[in-house]
Amino acid sequence: MKLINFSAGPAMLPRSVLEQARDELVDYGGAGMSLVEMSHRGPEYPAVHEQAVALARRVFEVPADFSVLFLQGGATLQFSMVPMNLLCPGKAGGYVVSGAWAKKAIADGRLYGDAYAAWDGAGVHYCRMPRPEEIELREGTRYLHVTSNETIGGIQMFGWPALGVPLVGDMSSDYLSRPIPWEHFDVVYGGAQKNLGPAGVTLVFLRQAILESTNRGLGAYLRYGYHDDGNSLANTPPVFAIWLVGKVLCWVEKQGGLGAMEAASRRRAGILYAAIDASGDFYRSPVEPTSRSLMNVVFRLPTDDLEERFLAEAAAAGLVGLKGHRSVGGCRASIYNAMSVEGVEALAGFMAQFRAANG
Amino acid sequence: MKLINFSAGPAMLPRSVLEQARDELVDYGGAGMSLVEMSHRGPEYPAVHEQAVALARRVFEVPADFSVLFLQGGATLQFSMVPMNLLCPGKAGGYVVSGAWAKKAIADGRLYGDAYAAWDGAGVHYCRMPRPEEIELREGTRYLHVTSNETIGGIQMFGWPALGVPLVGDMSSDYLSRPIPWEHFDVVYGGAQKNLGPAGVTLVFLRQAILESTNRGLGAYLRYGYHDDGNSLANTPPVFAIWLVGKVLCWVEKQGGLGAMEAASRRRAGILYAAIDASGDFYRSPVEPTSRSLMNVVFRLPTDDLEERFLAEAAAAGLVGLKGHRSVGGCRASIYNAMSVEGVEALAGFMAQFRAANG
Repeated sequence: MKLINFSAGPAMLPRSVLEQARDELVDYGGAGMSLVEMSHRGPEYPAVHEQAVALARRVFEVPADFSVLFLQGGATLQFSMVPMNLLCPGKAGGYVVSGAWAKKAIADGRLYGDAYAAWDGAGVHYCRMPRPEEIELREGTRYLHVTSNETIGGIQMFGWPALGVPLVGDMSSDYLSRPIPWEHFDVVYGGAQKNLGPAGVTLVFLRQAILESTNRGLGAYLRYGYHDDGNSLANTPPVFAIWLVGKVLCWVEKQGGLGAMEAASRRRAGILYAAIDASGDFYRSPVEPTSRSLMNVVFRLPTDDLEERFLAEAAAAGLVGLKGHRSVGGCRASIYNAMSVEGVEALAGFMAQFRAANG
Repeated sequence: MKLINFSAGPAMLPRSVLEQARDELVDYGGAGMSLVEMSHRGPEYPAVHEQAVALARRVFEVPADFSVLFLQGGATLQFSMVPMNLLCPGKAGGYVVSGAWAKKAIADGRLYGDAYAAWDGAGVHYCRMPRPEEIELREGTRYLHVTSNETIGGIQMFGWPALGVPLVGDMSSDYLSRPIPWEHFDVVYGGAQKNLGPAGVTLVFLRQAILESTNRGLGAYLRYGYHDDGNSLANTPPVFAIWLVGKVLCWVEKQGGLGAMEAASRRRAGILYAAIDASGDFYRSPVEPTSRSLMNVVFRLPTDDLEERFLAEAAAAGLVGLKGHRSVGGCRASIYNAMSVEGVEALAGFMAQFRAANG
């Protein structure tokens, strides 16, 4: 049985990307060795690296005054690196506390500077993103940190808070699913393992002008300037992960780029939200309609018992990875870029069938 | 032509490991998807992860009171994490400054605590490791940091400084080439990309008793306790790299474990040092005989011009990656665990031939 993988991440990759990697893994370009065995000083790997950087620039439509960095440690390390590099006495970091990921970001922010909640969704049970007028910025705010998509709560930010303060965005879970309005951002970061490649690499975009004023008294790996100066090759990069990110970016470009990805993500999510809304409250979305994530469709069934049976029967039908995050329970369909419309239709069909049998 | 890869890292991996990874890359265990597409919460990946941890314990002969962690960011991030976690006012870090890598370690150490050079090889041009009596420890030293092998200088530490202070060891370049005397160490760390797997994962061994007194006010990713509590699964791990490390560890075990690896490394290095010593000063090792690295055999030829021709003709004969590090020039044969005796014999044969033609 061919499984359909709704895992929240690591997640589906385009099959063609994996097949190419397989075909090239042992003997890269006829060199008689694997790319992962080669020195990162070249000549083969730097060409792969440069191509990944160039593709990221092109596919993400990155302005020339941003740097493209491939780092390690996931978004979790960026939760530290952002405040370490950007905050200093007199400059605070505002955070939109929109859910589980934003909470982690602000917790680490508080260790490295004056980080504060500019909005906290606790009062609305994290069922939506803030309206711009709800965000309260303090004087001396260096950046406003936003989590563009919360994978656990299943909410996504549509419309960016342009409040006169540069944004820093964790886009780990909606990278490549829509254009990024660069003019609002100083830093954008995200782990690769949902929309962009395998786990083990973090793609960071930095407005170059901010490098002059980032903190310098940091260990080498923790300084953005260290990676920027070395074009992410100052220390040994995660070769395999960057190689595959390049292949995924190629695939996205062939699909038609960000515009096509955005349209596809709307189409996929539309099918599932329609299935939920048409179910007469059998399936319920806990998310306010204006903030419904196009990446992670979270839903509940009438009882815990029905949820358990739904998950078990779905898995038996080849629909896997649908269990909600352990902190909130319920069901969650993660439908990143590599998910096909057919995959989503299969799930919607199963949902209708399960409701008919149990509703 | 089959190339023989003397790259200093990323470096050769056992062919069988790459072939297995290739065969399993697209469809893992008949699941119809790749391991790199699966959630790190399971069930497939956690089994792979646990096996890699268990194999590391067994193959490295790790005592039960040490934790085994798989982190990201390479040794470079450990240069920060070690002092961040271990140093505090009143506790200093001593460093054996044995070459290029130790200099990076102490530079980051100084940013996060009272780090000092307990010995500096500058006076001997970094041509050897210190004798124990040359190491000067201050009162209140929390640890003595050693770099067990310097890849650029080509020197290796034989005999560990047991001076009553716990050691912290960067073993990036000689992991798995000999047993580790655990009783002397609090922390051992190393990037995988030389002896252990592909780039993108750092294997860290921690004496569990020290976790109680490590610093807590650090960002999540930077706290050893965070990774220890989560068994290196607290955030998304670098799945592919850990998977391959497991396979390399399996391969080492099948070869006979550390004892067999150590014997093989002595045999390989012996062949090359014999070729150097028998060359009547045509090839010269700049390293003191007592510190000659079994991993990186550094040598010079009579002139820069001869070195250039040596490297070009060697490459033409399929012997690649022999150029010395750009900071020191000369030649360097990196002969990690996956290098065969035949590979080293081919190089020794070429060296004899080149000398006969040019000596």
